[in-house]
Amino acid sequence: MNMATEKTVRPVIGFIGLGVMGRPMAENLLAAGYPLMIHNRSQAAVRALAEMGATPASTSADLARASDIVITMLPDTPDVETVYFGSHGVFAGARAGHLLVDMSTVSPALARRIAQRGAEVGASCLDAPVSGGDLGARAGSLSIMAGGNRADFERALPVFRVLGGQIKWMGQAGAGQVTKACNQIIVALTIEAIGEAFALARRSGIELADLREVLLGGFAQSRVLDVHGQRLLDNRFDPGFRVALHRKDLTIALAEADAQSTALPVSALIHAMFNALVAQGHGGRDHSYLAAYIDGQSRPEADQA
Amino acid sequence: MNMATEKTVRPVIGFIGLGVMGRPMAENLLAAGYPLMIHNRSQAAVRALAEMGATPASTSADLARASDIVITMLPDTPDVETVYFGSHGVFAGARAGHLLVDMSTVSPALARRIAQRGAEVGASCLDAPVSGGDLGARAGSLSIMAGGNRADFERALPVFRVLGGQIKWMGQAGAGQVTKACNQIIVALTIEAIGEAFALARRSGIELADLREVLLGGFAQSRVLDVHGQRLLDNRFDPGFRVALHRKDLTIALAEADAQSTALPVSALIHAMFNALVAQGHGGRDHSYLAAYIDGQSRPEADQA
Repeated sequence: MNMATEKTVRPVIGFIGLGVMGRPMAENLLAAGYPLMIHNRSQAAVRALAEMGATPASTSADLARASDIVITMLPDTPDVETVYFGSHGVFAGARAGHLLVDMSTVSPALARRIAQRGAEVGASCLDAPVSGGDLGARAGSLSIMAGGNRADFERALPVFRVLGGQIKWMGQAGAGQVTKACNQIIVALTIEAIGEAFALARRSGIELADLREVLLGGFAQSRVLDVHGQRLLDNRFDPGFRVALHRKDLTIALAEADAQSTALPVSALIHAMFNALVAQGHGGRDHSYLAAYIDGQSRPEADQA
Repeated sequence: MNMATEKTVRPVIGFIGLGVMGRPMAENLLAAGYPLMIHNRSQAAVRALAEMGATPASTSADLARASDIVITMLPDTPDVETVYFGSHGVFAGARAGHLLVDMSTVSPALARRIAQRGAEVGASCLDAPVSGGDLGARAGSLSIMAGGNRADFERALPVFRVLGGQIKWMGQAGAGQVTKACNQIIVALTIEAIGEAFALARRSGIELADLREVLLGGFAQSRVLDVHGQRLLDNRFDPGFRVALHRKDLTIALAEADAQSTALPVSALIHAMFNALVAQGHGGRDHSYLAAYIDGQSRPEADQA
């Protein structure tokens, strides 16, 4: 019996982006026993992870050189663009055999550009955005929607299983981002749906708790009605998932729709409503505030107490 | 021991409207042992129910005179208006102590008018629209949303329990209709939500079956995504619940919103889309066709084969 074959040699993971999502994901990878390189703009998270055993790298390129698998988890499309294509970015340190996994929510177009550049240097690329929020990130129960080559997805699966619950390969490069965009379209429009229903009910004298209960028992049932319906009852709009981020996700969806000549009339309208909310200073509220906004009687002060 | 106290004396129910919903409801009341008077425009359903033991009445007024409880189940607001207020209508035969229950989906304004007129003659009135479709009507598992006085609701409960599963008192006259309108708003907007998501996904090359599966596992989950998402995959738009009826229900919602000075911007847009579908000859299709319509690649011929 050869003991060496019994020992799992784990690949070195380089993790870029230790924010509200990335930090607990990186912690879970450390806890699962992966050697971890880290890089982040803010140094507070770097120091905390280093104390847990991770090794800081001074640039994304340095991190890539020292890693087998690179995971990025950043706020928006321009951040990811810089981290991959910048002069000290991931591609400056990328080599054949690398697996580069962007788990941020960005445009499918950028995901396809990263995959194309990866192919040029012999690196494999996946776009693998998530849903489930910071709670899901901490619990390791994220839903992961991946695009890229199927074989590369299989290679990433052990890592994904540390981070997520529902994990699904959706197709070639960009397919993960398109799936995430579809998710965000449905969630946004469903929030508006319950907002309009609750506004009509309240102004007609219906008890909103009764409304939520009876509608949850019928064809109008949804997870959004359950969770955000309760938020509307409680008048609590502390995030959660911020208005400003959901606006960004609809920007991505509409850009992809434009590229595919697809009409998304209501998504476009909701995007405009999110813009109005941000312009009026509500970008930091939970996205469920969209549902409260149409009904002038909501009391947004409640969550600031 | 007095045997008479053991025997339940059931009130006579008069049932008006033996269509796709009303007929199975009336049959369930007969099967539960209620003496049943019936009235309907088409005589085929009257003959069928009469063979099962129901007693035909030649007018709504005659039916009301011979009944303790009157139930109406009719297609639209004008039908209900005529059946209650016409010269041979329910109110022509109404008396003190009558319980008049309209289970049609009509405007809250009409429900309130009926309740007011009922109060003038000493009759109790409930608006008690349902959801669950013809399947729910046959199974006796309808969701019933009732408005009116609480004591009158309690009096109707034994009858509602024959017809429905989830039964809820929502408030004073009109509250049942408002609740139904809210249900129809949410269902319509959720159909559009999955329509926009599926259109974007299909044009971006995503397998729609994979999309439905992954979204059902996350925050975008809804009963509409489950049931009508499958319809979109199967390209089947035989009703079900017709486009023309859902359009009517949004007309009701928008009229009530107008009366309550409530803004329902997306409901108004979806109402316009339903109008377009009806104008183009699709009023008889299942309402899920709204979701297929935006994506020019749906094959509406499929369900006509």
